[in-house]
Amino acid sequence: MKTNQQWLIAARPRGDVKESDFRWNEATLADPADGEVLIRTVYISLDPTNRIWMNEAESYLPALPLGHVMRGGGIGAVEESRNPGFSKGDIVQGLLGWQKYSLSDGAGLAKLPKGLPVPLTAFFGLLGHIGLTAYFGLLDITDPKPGETLVISTAAGAVGSLVGQIGKIKGCYVVGLTGSDEKCHWIKDELGFDAAINYKTANVPDALKQNCPKGIDIYFDNVGGAILEAVLNQINMKARISVCGMISQYNADSPLPGPSNLANLIMKRARMEGFLCFDYNSRAEEAFTQLIGWLLQGKLKYRVDVVQGLENAPRTLHKLFDGSNAGKLIVQVGPE
Amino acid sequence: MKTNQQWLIAARPRGDVKESDFRWNEATLADPADGEVLIRTVYISLDPTNRIWMNEAESYLPALPLGHVMRGGGIGAVEESRNPGFSKGDIVQGLLGWQKYSLSDGAGLAKLPKGLPVPLTAFFGLLGHIGLTAYFGLLDITDPKPGETLVISTAAGAVGSLVGQIGKIKGCYVVGLTGSDEKCHWIKDELGFDAAINYKTANVPDALKQNCPKGIDIYFDNVGGAILEAVLNQINMKARISVCGMISQYNADSPLPGPSNLANLIMKRARMEGFLCFDYNSRAEEAFTQLIGWLLQGKLKYRVDVVQGLENAPRTLHKLFDGSNAGKLIVQVGPE
Repeated sequence: MKTNQQWLIAARPRGDVKESDFRWNEATLADPADGEVLIRTVYISLDPTNRIWMNEAESYLPALPLGHVMRGGGIGAVEESRNPGFSKGDIVQGLLGWQKYSLSDGAGLAKLPKGLPVPLTAFFGLLGHIGLTAYFGLLDITDPKPGETLVISTAAGAVGSLVGQIGKIKGCYVVGLTGSDEKCHWIKDELGFDAAINYKTANVPDALKQNCPKGIDIYFDNVGGAILEAVLNQINMKARISVCGMISQYNADSPLPGPSNLANLIMKRARMEGFLCFDYNSRAEEAFTQLIGWLLQGKLKYRVDVVQGLENAPRTLHKLFDGSNAGKLIVQVGPE
Repeated sequence: MKTNQQWLIAARPRGDVKESDFRWNEATLADPADGEVLIRTVYISLDPTNRIWMNEAESYLPALPLGHVMRGGGIGAVEESRNPGFSKGDIVQGLLGWQKYSLSDGAGLAKLPKGLPVPLTAFFGLLGHIGLTAYFGLLDITDPKPGETLVISTAAGAVGSLVGQIGKIKGCYVVGLTGSDEKCHWIKDELGFDAAINYKTANVPDALKQNCPKGIDIYFDNVGGAILEAVLNQINMKARISVCGMISQYNADSPLPGPSNLANLIMKRARMEGFLCFDYNSRAEEAFTQLIGWLLQGKLKYRVDVVQGLENAPRTLHKLFDGSNAGKLIVQVGPE
């Protein structure tokens, strides 16, 4: 019998998430039953969607009851297996939750291949749900063509930075919006974006006009809100908007109004389409093979921001919303 | 030399269109130059998009300068032709404008076939831009499947009433929103919609819940605004929203906020797509052959609301916005 440590949802957040919305819990962990595996968490992934999962309303996954362990994607090591599909030492990825140990019947658990020429954290920064989101959210939803102008919000984020680099590989003119000069520098000078806009200091409509002289063909939207409205005013005929996230809305205490200019979808015969990475699980190999290939060819870079200690997860989550993370945000719970 | 009568744009409307936004003008008409045809207007079509054309901003067509004759679709008879493509007596459809006569070089003018088993007004109520809009806006943009739930706003309008009937032909469960009990009766009992909601007296979110027990797979949107928001809350996975119009926004004096729940596009992996009938001109024959076929088989009905006299055009336009028209709104300018 082991002692587990975990974060439970203590309250529904109102507005920004507070540390008091979580409660630390220590409890003895049952031994795995027949068919179960015991997993020791190595990393958990912090993502904007964590905020959605804390709401009372069902989203694309069932709502979590108060007092339940916080949901979270993670990578762990199998410590004990009573499931024929897994063996001790397997490295697995799935919704392990914000906890040191978890029990699973194997459903939704992916065994990670060993011997790949990438570190384990690449399964957050390049592969896993981030890679699926960037790869299919751009290529499948918008079908980018060489010479088209691609605009990306939260462009220095885990997903956005990949989307922009894939856009460059596909021959697009790529413009990223991000929240600091350091991040602007990173996406433009390190990742090869054609232009970067600091949305906190620039007038976004003017900056888009200046940096997208041929208008906007594709918008990869992570934020919704005012930036979506500014983009809709500058879309070209047959523009495509891939709706990946609306982070500007997630912390809102009451519903925020949407863009006032959706009628531009008519004027420009344009399309907005939402998607979730889960829908592409069956095509993961296609994406990951290509992404690793590009990485090894030096065409793709990614960075991870690893925070040590499960105890720091709640206070780290806000970095996603104030933009202070530098790369894919991960909490390391235990040794690899 | 003939005397022409016409309505000019006198002012940019603020909010609702007023009669004083137009100015009546009489002027002598030049004889057709080489390559031109002289057309006598028989009917003009009043459409929600007329309101868009009065704005200072360019839309999907160039903005009209103040003092210019009001733009409008129409049907007319060629009275004199100095263009080898047209002969005296030809019946033509195009942007003739709100005037008794017009001169054209033939660009954008369609010669209507003679001998079809439908009256001339069918080119507004069933064929023409209305037919293209309904046919392709539903079938091409949303690809409806038998058993799916299709919701339509301004469902008793020229486009909406066709969309619902085509939806029924395709095996959908069809729910229409319209603004009077008489119109509810018409679409349900005469046109065969499965359910009708009077949006002026019902609580729309509740009524949608009650009348769409399996959720909403397809929304044909003519209005935007609050009804779009209510629909977005009840869409199913992989829902499609065909964005045909946003009439709730056209008369707004200042921009109206959009729906606060666009993030549901993500949760439901749904799509919103705008279109314009012009984009389908090259496929008009396909649509019109099918629509006439369905009409003759008794599977489609349409109705027209013909107002006599060009002088009444400005005061008639508001019927589209207060919902007091009964069928496709047309002004008869002269005899057929």
